[in-house]
Amino acid sequence: MTRKTPRRTLYRRRSEKAGLPPDSLVYVGDRGGGQVAMTLIDYQEDTYTERALESPGQCSPYRQSPSTTWINVEGLSQPRQLEALGTAMGVHSLVLEDILNTEQRPKFEDFDDYLFVVAKFLEFDHKAGTVVPEHLALVLGRNYLVSFQEVPGDPFEPVRSRIRAGAGRVRKMGADFLLYSLLDMAVDQYLVVLDQVGERIEALDHQILTSQRPRIMAEMYALMRDLLFLSKVVGPLREVVNGLRHTSSALISDACAPFFRDLHDHVAHVSDRIETYRDLLSGMLDLHLTTVSNRTNTVMKIIAVFSSVFLPLTFITGLFGMNFESMPLLHSREGFAIVVGCMVAVVALMLAVFRLWRWI
Amino acid sequence: MTRKTPRRTLYRRRSEKAGLPPDSLVYVGDRGGGQVAMTLIDYQEDTYTERALESPGQCSPYRQSPSTTWINVEGLSQPRQLEALGTAMGVHSLVLEDILNTEQRPKFEDFDDYLFVVAKFLEFDHKAGTVVPEHLALVLGRNYLVSFQEVPGDPFEPVRSRIRAGAGRVRKMGADFLLYSLLDMAVDQYLVVLDQVGERIEALDHQILTSQRPRIMAEMYALMRDLLFLSKVVGPLREVVNGLRHTSSALISDACAPFFRDLHDHVAHVSDRIETYRDLLSGMLDLHLTTVSNRTNTVMKIIAVFSSVFLPLTFITGLFGMNFESMPLLHSREGFAIVVGCMVAVVALMLAVFRLWRWI
Amino acid sequence: MTRKTPRRTLYRRRSEKAGLPPDSLVYVGDRGGGQVAMTLIDYQEDTYTERALESPGQCSPYRQSPSTTWINVEGLSQPRQLEALGTAMGVHSLVLEDILNTEQRPKFEDFDDYLFVVAKFLEFDHKAGTVVPEHLALVLGRNYLVSFQEVPGDPFEPVRSRIRAGAGRVRKMGADFLLYSLLDMAVDQYLVVLDQVGERIEALDHQILTSQRPRIMAEMYALMRDLLFLSKVVGPLREVVNGLRHTSSALISDACAPFFRDLHDHVAHVSDRIETYRDLLSGMLDLHLTTVSNRTNTVMKIIAVFSSVFLPLTFITGLFGMNFESMPLLHSREGFAIVVGCMVAVVALMLAVFRLWRWI
Amino acid sequence: MTRKTPRRTLYRRRSEKAGLPPDSLVYVGDRGGGQVAMTLIDYQEDTYTERALESPGQCSPYRQSPSTTWINVEGLSQPRQLEALGTAMGVHSLVLEDILNTEQRPKFEDFDDYLFVVAKFLEFDHKAGTVVPEHLALVLGRNYLVSFQEVPGDPFEPVRSRIRAGAGRVRKMGADFLLYSLLDMAVDQYLVVLDQVGERIEALDHQILTSQRPRIMAEMYALMRDLLFLSKVVGPLREVVNGLRHTSSALISDACAPFFRDLHDHVAHVSDRIETYRDLLSGMLDLHLTTVSNRTNTVMKIIAVFSSVFLPLTFITGLFGMNFESMPLLHSREGFAIVVGCMVAVVALMLAVFRLWRWI
Amino acid sequence: MTRKTPRRTLYRRRSEKAGLPPDSLVYVGDRGGGQVAMTLIDYQEDTYTERALESPGQCSPYRQSPSTTWINVEGLSQPRQLEALGTAMGVHSLVLEDILNTEQRPKFEDFDDYLFVVAKFLEFDHKAGTVVPEHLALVLGRNYLVSFQEVPGDPFEPVRSRIRAGAGRVRKMGADFLLYSLLDMAVDQYLVVLDQVGERIEALDHQILTSQRPRIMAEMYALMRDLLFLSKVVGPLREVVNGLRHTSSALISDACAPFFRDLHDHVAHVSDRIETYRDLLSGMLDLHLTTVSNRTNTVMKIIAVFSSVFLPLTFITGLFGMNFESMPLLHSREGFAIVVGCMVAVVALMLAVFRLWRWI
Repeated sequence: MTRKTPRRTLYRRRSEKAGLPPDSLVYVGDRGGGQVAMTLIDYQEDTYTERALESPGQCSPYRQSPSTTWINVEGLSQPRQLEALGTAMGVHSLVLEDILNTEQRPKFEDFDDYLFVVAKFLEFDHKAGTVVPEHLALVLGRNYLVSFQEVPGDPFEPVRSRIRAGAGRVRKMGADFLLYSLLDMAVDQYLVVLDQVGERIEALDHQILTSQRPRIMAEMYALMRDLLFLSKVVGPLREVVNGLRHTSSALISDACAPFFRDLHDHVAHVSDRIETYRDLLSGMLDLHLTTVSNRTNTVMKIIAVFSSVFLPLTFITGLFGMNFESMPLLHSREGFAIVVGCMVAVVALMLAVFRLWRWI
Repeated sequence: MTRKTPRRTLYRRRSEKAGLPPDSLVYVGDRGGGQVAMTLIDYQEDTYTERALESPGQCSPYRQSPSTTWINVEGLSQPRQLEALGTAMGVHSLVLEDILNTEQRPKFEDFDDYLFVVAKFLEFDHKAGTVVPEHLALVLGRNYLVSFQEVPGDPFEPVRSRIRAGAGRVRKMGADFLLYSLLDMAVDQYLVVLDQVGERIEALDHQILTSQRPRIMAEMYALMRDLLFLSKVVGPLREVVNGLRHTSSALISDACAPFFRDLHDHVAHVSDRIETYRDLLSGMLDLHLTTVSNRTNTVMKIIAVFSSVFLPLTFITGLFGMNFESMPLLHSREGFAIVVGCMVAVVALMLAVFRLWRWI
Repeated sequence: MTRKTPRRTLYRRRSEKAGLPPDSLVYVGDRGGGQVAMTLIDYQEDTYTERALESPGQCSPYRQSPSTTWINVEGLSQPRQLEALGTAMGVHSLVLEDILNTEQRPKFEDFDDYLFVVAKFLEFDHKAGTVVPEHLALVLGRNYLVSFQEVPGDPFEPVRSRIRAGAGRVRKMGADFLLYSLLDMAVDQYLVVLDQVGERIEALDHQILTSQRPRIMAEMYALMRDLLFLSKVVGPLREVVNGLRHTSSALISDACAPFFRDLHDHVAHVSDRIETYRDLLSGMLDLHLTTVSNRTNTVMKIIAVFSSVFLPLTFITGLFGMNFESMPLLHSREGFAIVVGCMVAVVALMLAVFRLWRWI
Repeated sequence: MTRKTPRRTLYRRRSEKAGLPPDSLVYVGDRGGGQVAMTLIDYQEDTYTERALESPGQCSPYRQSPSTTWINVEGLSQPRQLEALGTAMGVHSLVLEDILNTEQRPKFEDFDDYLFVVAKFLEFDHKAGTVVPEHLALVLGRNYLVSFQEVPGDPFEPVRSRIRAGAGRVRKMGADFLLYSLLDMAVDQYLVVLDQVGERIEALDHQILTSQRPRIMAEMYALMRDLLFLSKVVGPLREVVNGLRHTSSALISDACAPFFRDLHDHVAHVSDRIETYRDLLSGMLDLHLTTVSNRTNTVMKIIAVFSSVFLPLTFITGLFGMNFESMPLLHSREGFAIVVGCMVAVVALMLAVFRLWRWI
Repeated sequence: MTRKTPRRTLYRRRSEKAGLPPDSLVYVGDRGGGQVAMTLIDYQEDTYTERALESPGQCSPYRQSPSTTWINVEGLSQPRQLEALGTAMGVHSLVLEDILNTEQRPKFEDFDDYLFVVAKFLEFDHKAGTVVPEHLALVLGRNYLVSFQEVPGDPFEPVRSRIRAGAGRVRKMGADFLLYSLLDMAVDQYLVVLDQVGERIEALDHQILTSQRPRIMAEMYALMRDLLFLSKVVGPLREVVNGLRHTSSALISDACAPFFRDLHDHVAHVSDRIETYRDLLSGMLDLHLTTVSNRTNTVMKIIAVFSSVFLPLTFITGLFGMNFESMPLLHSREGFAIVVGCMVAVVALMLAVFRLWRWI
């Protein structure tokens, strides 16, 4: 059961979509069920409004206003509603398709009027012992940002409360800074996940030289798999942030440039850590395998040495157990003592030779 | 037999062609036998015609018409007929050679008047348990598209019915969108194949820790081979789509650019998945080998420990089986009991030591 | 003997040349002995002349003529004669050095007045079971081409007969097309060699799961070596053809561009195949090693299990072979039967346990 | 304990920072405790002042002066004080964040008014047997340089005394040369660390063929880990120095260019050495594993051969130990001698065969 | 002793230099002891002068003369003298540092007035069985070249005698051609070294399938190490020659361009060979390991099979060696014959089964 989960999350079935028109809206995923909730936050340096949206149409008035508007959509299971929102916001149908396709890898696209960004949230599912991704799509327009989350929940709460409280510089800057804040949030989450991966690696590392649990191998491979998955998410994300950093789009102001540069730096750090963990883990695997194999070899060697000592002894007992009528020593009084003495001598000699050859 | 099939499909013999003039038309392949069937579809936003072509010449009138013309050729075994079609369409003889050469890897070439694209269809042959490619060549001109399929059959039916029904945007756009639709179709097919590969990997993954079937190794290597083959197809395809996306040719309209960008994205996703599967599979192989080797080692270790317990016992029996006239204990009443007691003590001692050393 | 050949062909001794002036003409090689034969073919769309050259000077008149002149030189063992030809043709002394140095890897150089290309012919030597290269140098000038072959023989015969017969487009085009035709010839030869390598891989593949021949490993490594050698030849060749394709030299006409593009494609295909074969072969090697190792392990395990069954039996026989005066059962009538019964029980118990643990 | 240290230094926990505003100032690290000490050195070719700063404000007058000012900050545990200094110097809040984040990998950023460089000091901690990094941040402005060290101590003393003494060219050149001198200092330190790593590799190399210490494997893996860590530090540092070398910033004068080029060269040398050591170490690991495995195999083979000699002997003794009434030889006078003779013959034969097969 | 040498030559201690000013002149190395000898050769197409220099100042008059001047410096142990020469020639202090630093990897730098090149000579030290590098620095100015050799000796003698004799084109061309000639000399030396490495690989290759010498592994790893070292030298050298080939410096005349192109080609060939040898050697290592392991496995298997045959026999002898009063067969006349017959049957049966299972 545990083993199955990570693979599932790696790729979901896409076959169902084959043959449909290229931009047909189908929700690919299994987690974002039930309702779709839309909330709207509109703010300027000195004003702040927050409301739940009932229909996509309600956001139209905010689209042209000079204040910054943030529409957050939770749940992706209602393609119709999202299509209406897309039309209201004027986004391309292919963008809507990508918003719904939770298998879409991170990407950045510039549609002149708006920028489209796909990223991933990550959580460490302690019960399954594996990393779980959540799809995240962002559309940045002039003065507005629309964010799409696959699973209801509130990973963006810290940003929202900073806006509410007017803390930091978020209220002083535009929608581009908001985009940066949300992505930075997601990348921070990666570091939390990596800290947990790091702790598990550390825990395993204490065991590889001593433990004989057979599960330890499977656990290392499971972590390897998680890191493989992480690297597949972070690789494209790096390109995304690089794209945002170097874009010539007017939607990203110059004042934001250092922040995206900084974000790029964070993603590079994440990428470095993943690579390092993979190298560490693969070194640990090798060391563990070697240790296990050495331990087995040592056992076999000791037993073989031990056995080899008994072979000549047993031969001698057999020799004097033969039923020949005329044999030397058998009828002598000291016969038994002499033979036992020989046996002791043989054992002593063998042990001396083994010690000389450094076998024992 | 099963093992042989995938290799065959990897590369067919090319030696026969050696020494022929560079652009001589020879069909390289063994599947596209029999008849060559040509169908023509001509459509605009509001008109639609479909007919079977009997001779290549019949398509000439459509070449200059403002409506979009799609000529689909099934079967490649009649070089003469294809040459006639090529002449009617004005394509270079090298293009015709590549259309017939089913070993040709995916490529994109811009001949100013027309674009030439080679791609591959993929199917998962369940009986042989392997991936089977089908050659696909596309020529995009002003207002027309010619597609060449190696094997008769109808993988393009969904696109055709969308055109017939006027569904989606295909009727509203030109031949470039048709090209995109066919390629998108092919790439969708890759995802279907990958889903099946993924399922087989999942099925194997459940067995690698427990199963002792010797076939399991061969199956993993066969999957590895399929993935190797897939990566050899998808790698050049990625370049093809990248070429189409960044081409400056006037034959690809601006309205189509986002679609080719999207297609590029899909191919990148396919490529990612293949790479991930290869990494997964190679990790599984290692884990399986380690598991098998550990299991064998454990068996050998237990047997060795078991054997080593009997060696001193057998020696003791031999000792008292010797035929010396004067030996201690032999004539005493409790002799046997004492010796058996010693044996029990030896066994207990050895087991204690083994337990102490954590061998058992 | 067989093993030695491939290594020899990989690199010949170069030490002898160390210390000589940079452009001193020394023939490096051991195959192109004896005579040097020069033939001249001069053709236009409607004329054709073929003659043997006795001295290099005889080719001068053809150098300026508007017709296309092809001078083919077989054998490289007469540096003086080649130098004379070089002077007559006006090529740089470094070019002559490279023509004679059969160790020279494929390269393309543009000397404004002429282009210089080094390539390799390949043959599969069935007796030695290995791939044998032949040095090939080509100098393309305005209206003329000079080709240098290391070993006399006629790999270019098909091209020559096409020129003679006026078949194909070779007579209609210039010396650049002739250059293309000869290179295409060579690359076609690679595919023939690869077909043979592929056949040997296929033949080996049938054996790796069943055969126990110890030679099989050495054969796989020999093939690995051949493929390594091939990749070292094809890698630079790919750059050569790429250089020819993208050159801005006026010596390559626009009409020839699609042909060089096509040639590049063929070389890429060859390169792909080599890489694929290497991957296949290395997978086969791993599978074979694993199979052999598993087979050995199985044998050892079965024997160990078999042995362990006899240990307690032998102990019991020893027990009742001891010479104690008072032992249980010995004097009873059913003693023997009881003990044999015990033995049977022990064997049954052990087999049951082994079966339970799935050892047998 | 020893094993734990290197991992700790690889990455510190970052999770605590998740959710905070992007540029919030939090000291990430555990070594730079206690006080923050600031010293200021102001010099020109002929003047020199050195003083301790009590408050960040005191440095303002030096900011505009034509003399070169070097402010060195030791200890990072007082974010407030650093913020004040940052404000006085006019640096971006993200720069301050990076100065405090000791996990920040080496980087170079150009903020027009000033350049920001993050690098790492390295020390070899002999007690823990591992490499310990120290965070180092540098801000280069017009005529001033601010350096931030995580741990109080004086790695820069040699540079300071050169300035004091007016030795070398440091007093004659500007703040850019000072930046170069400090980085060169740090890179020199890397070579010291690498010399120590090199010595340990050399020490291990003498043991891999002879030693049987089980710790030797763990030590090699620990060195491997150190080298992995070093490569993760040096890789980005190479980019940093490359950036400084090719920057178009006016803050780096032309006179300094050869020095940064030289520094780049040093870093490339360091990088080469790390790579070489990794290759060496991995070769040593393989050789050690092979040696250990061969030694075990040899022991097992010798014991197996030894054992196999006794098997027929013991069988023969058993044969003549059977209690049949009528058996050949038993009652003959020479019986025992004949049988012993047979045994000797068997042993001789077996040894001859083993020698023939080159087993012994 | 032998093993220690290669490592030493890989990297010498640099720690001593840490903390010194960046361009302080310290000789890093241990071979170039004793005297520093300077010789000057001045030549034009028709004149030739050769003299030993006693003081660096003597070369000043030649600096401006139109004739080509070559100053060769042997031995690097007198920093003062080299500094004087450097001042007389007007080279940067960093260049002098690099000339003295024998650990400096190959590099090419353009200082407008002069070009600075670092390369390496290589020799194969037959006694130590390892490759020994020698530092080589070259400064090319207008009409003059200064070469610095670490170890006195005369690797350049062939060039010198060609100048003396006026052979080849060296007297007709300038200092740039002289630079080329010296580098070409060094690269030719690499081929000599590679020929020797190749011979040792060939020698080893004959042994890997048959030899059981344990040293063979260590020898292969030592060769691996040499090749690793070579690749670390040749990699940067390739960049150096590429830099010289593509430099826009006026110091390299157009007439020399083909020669540097040719040199680049030679270095590429060297690089190819090194890579090929590494691949070959690693394949040989694998094959050897497999062969050794297979041989051991075969021995163990045969012994195990042999042993298993004796187990039932010994059991039977034990059975009839028991001292029961009433046992079947014991008192019958044919008893012994029957039992021996049974034994023969058991052996025959087991051998048949083993043959059937293809174990023997």
